[in-house]
Amino acid sequence: MFFEGAEKKAQIQVDRSQISLLNDISDEFWQVLVMRCNAQILSSTNNGQCKAFLLSESSLFVWHDKLLILTCGETQLVNSIEYFIEHIGKEKIQQLTYQRKNEYFAHAQPSCFSDDIKQLSQYLNGSVYRFGELDGHHNYLFNYDNAFNANPEDKSYEFIAYQISEKASALLTTSGISAKEIRQFLSLETILPDFIIDDFVFKPYGYSLNAIKDDKYLTIHVTPQANSSYISFESNIDLIAFAPLFIDILNPLSFDILSFNEFEFSAKTLPYRKTNYVSKTLVETTLPNGYKINFANFILPQVDFIEPVALTLEGEGFTDNKTL
Amino acid sequence: MFFEGAEKKAQIQVDRSQISLLNDISDEFWQVLVMRCNAQILSSTNNGQCKAFLLSESSLFVWHDKLLILTCGETQLVNSIEYFIEHIGKEKIQQLTYQRKNEYFAHAQPSCFSDDIKQLSQYLNGSVYRFGELDGHHNYLFNYDNAFNANPEDKSYEFIAYQISEKASALLTTSGISAKEIRQFLSLETILPDFIIDDFVFKPYGYSLNAIKDDKYLTIHVTPQANSSYISFESNIDLIAFAPLFIDILNPLSFDILSFNEFEFSAKTLPYRKTNYVSKTLVETTLPNGYKINFANFILPQVDFIEPVALTLEGEGFTDNKTL
Repeated sequence: MFFEGAEKKAQIQVDRSQISLLNDISDEFWQVLVMRCNAQILSSTNNGQCKAFLLSESSLFVWHDKLLILTCGETQLVNSIEYFIEHIGKEKIQQLTYQRKNEYFAHAQPSCFSDDIKQLSQYLNGSVYRFGELDGHHNYLFNYDNAFNANPEDKSYEFIAYQISEKASALLTTSGISAKEIRQFLSLETILPDFIIDDFVFKPYGYSLNAIKDDKYLTIHVTPQANSSYISFESNIDLIAFAPLFIDILNPLSFDILSFNEFEFSAKTLPYRKTNYVSKTLVETTLPNGYKINFANFILPQVDFIEPVALTLEGEGFTDNKTL
Repeated sequence: MFFEGAEKKAQIQVDRSQISLLNDISDEFWQVLVMRCNAQILSSTNNGQCKAFLLSESSLFVWHDKLLILTCGETQLVNSIEYFIEHIGKEKIQQLTYQRKNEYFAHAQPSCFSDDIKQLSQYLNGSVYRFGELDGHHNYLFNYDNAFNANPEDKSYEFIAYQISEKASALLTTSGISAKEIRQFLSLETILPDFIIDDFVFKPYGYSLNAIKDDKYLTIHVTPQANSSYISFESNIDLIAFAPLFIDILNPLSFDILSFNEFEFSAKTLPYRKTNYVSKTLVETTLPNGYKINFANFILPQVDFIEPVALTLEGEGFTDNKTL
């Protein structure tokens, strides 16, 4: 079955002098917030600086002054953000970004980005941008317009692999594969020494991981099925440094790197532009509040012709003949 | 305003011993057929071998034994095909393909490809394929499964330019530009000597052309607005030969070439794979009825970072700040 891996994502910074999201907010609040977008909390970890919730569709991270939520599938994340604004209060919000990627199957989504922004605009004025061309990978971003200035040390990164190799897809869709086997395949023991790890293998396949250490986090979401594979890594540790390792493991046909406040993005990603991958999209801007954002999509040029994918109708959509 | 240039397309071959679509079918039938997908006939030309209708959304061509229809925007072409099958009769249909490209804004479409195929499957059994990855340019194709064998001389070609240069977009969106000026810009006098031409400039912009000569046709549809430009050429004359000219004029960030029964596709497109464009997608197959289909998408690798597109909400979707 097809599953929409592409995430919606929101990052919210609150005024620490008015509220601590870790101390002042109950788990019941987060449960309801997550339910508002039609997801559920599966488990959580907490190291005192960061609480990480593993969701039925992706992840929620909470710090004293910050929240990060990613949800995939057909969740309506904007409803959770509306719930947050209504219950925490706009006056405590210093910064808010709401981001959405182009989906594999946009028509199956309960709302499009402009619907979401109409909903958010009832509460906050913001600016809207598109990073990347409409006919390729792109990210829509809504940024709350206010007087808040970004902390240049508030860096975060996304690395997303699309159309991973047949070998990687076959391994990650192995019936009964354990979380440990997936961690080993992704070399996570190397990347995450001393991190608290909370991970989950979905049935029939799919994998999510939250990892935290002090105020650092890494979250990984694996939609491994052939022809619509999507593997996302999101972190405030430098994923550009780890990207060559992930590329080597997954051999994707295409990958994205997106960063907030990585001031050396161009130099750091230059090595990819000298390998067999080429840059399809390169976007860079600095938002009025000082946030620097970079987005790049790389593709692997093709040499050989391949057969088309044969499809059969099943339920609401198509099922890939080859893999199911 | 955004306009969806990507076309749905159907090709139907009928048994000439049972019916002539040129002689036996009235214009009123085609009028109703076109209305069924929410388009309208604007004008028509006829040279005895082929009748070409220019539509409010793209084109319809009718030969004695064949029909080709392309419709863009938010038309529901499958309804026109259903009308054809119901009124002409399945027993007269030798071959039918129904094709749909990935749209810029899939969520704005009244149906998705699987909806369309469910509707068609009530009348005809067929096989379904996807040419191209889900996260890039792709074509869905439904092919009627029957005993008919393709004529290898029945060749046709599509050339589609995406994200044309600022210069080309600016010229093609010039207020009051004439059809002649657009024909000159596209060098059509060179390509189409002795063709009967029927073309139309839409307000505020957009251009469609039908050209016929004997049983040859060329149709061009221009959606020129910056950030969502889409210019399609469809013909049974060899468009691969003309592609370098179109690329030179339009400088697209990306282009597709699709062909039916072009047995030298790989050799003929090899020159593009040696220029500054690279192949993102290369697909090739031969359908059970003998139709050979090739699809290739080429992109222009990027070197420089560009700013994101700033957007504002208007009506149901986004409006590009830069151009409107």
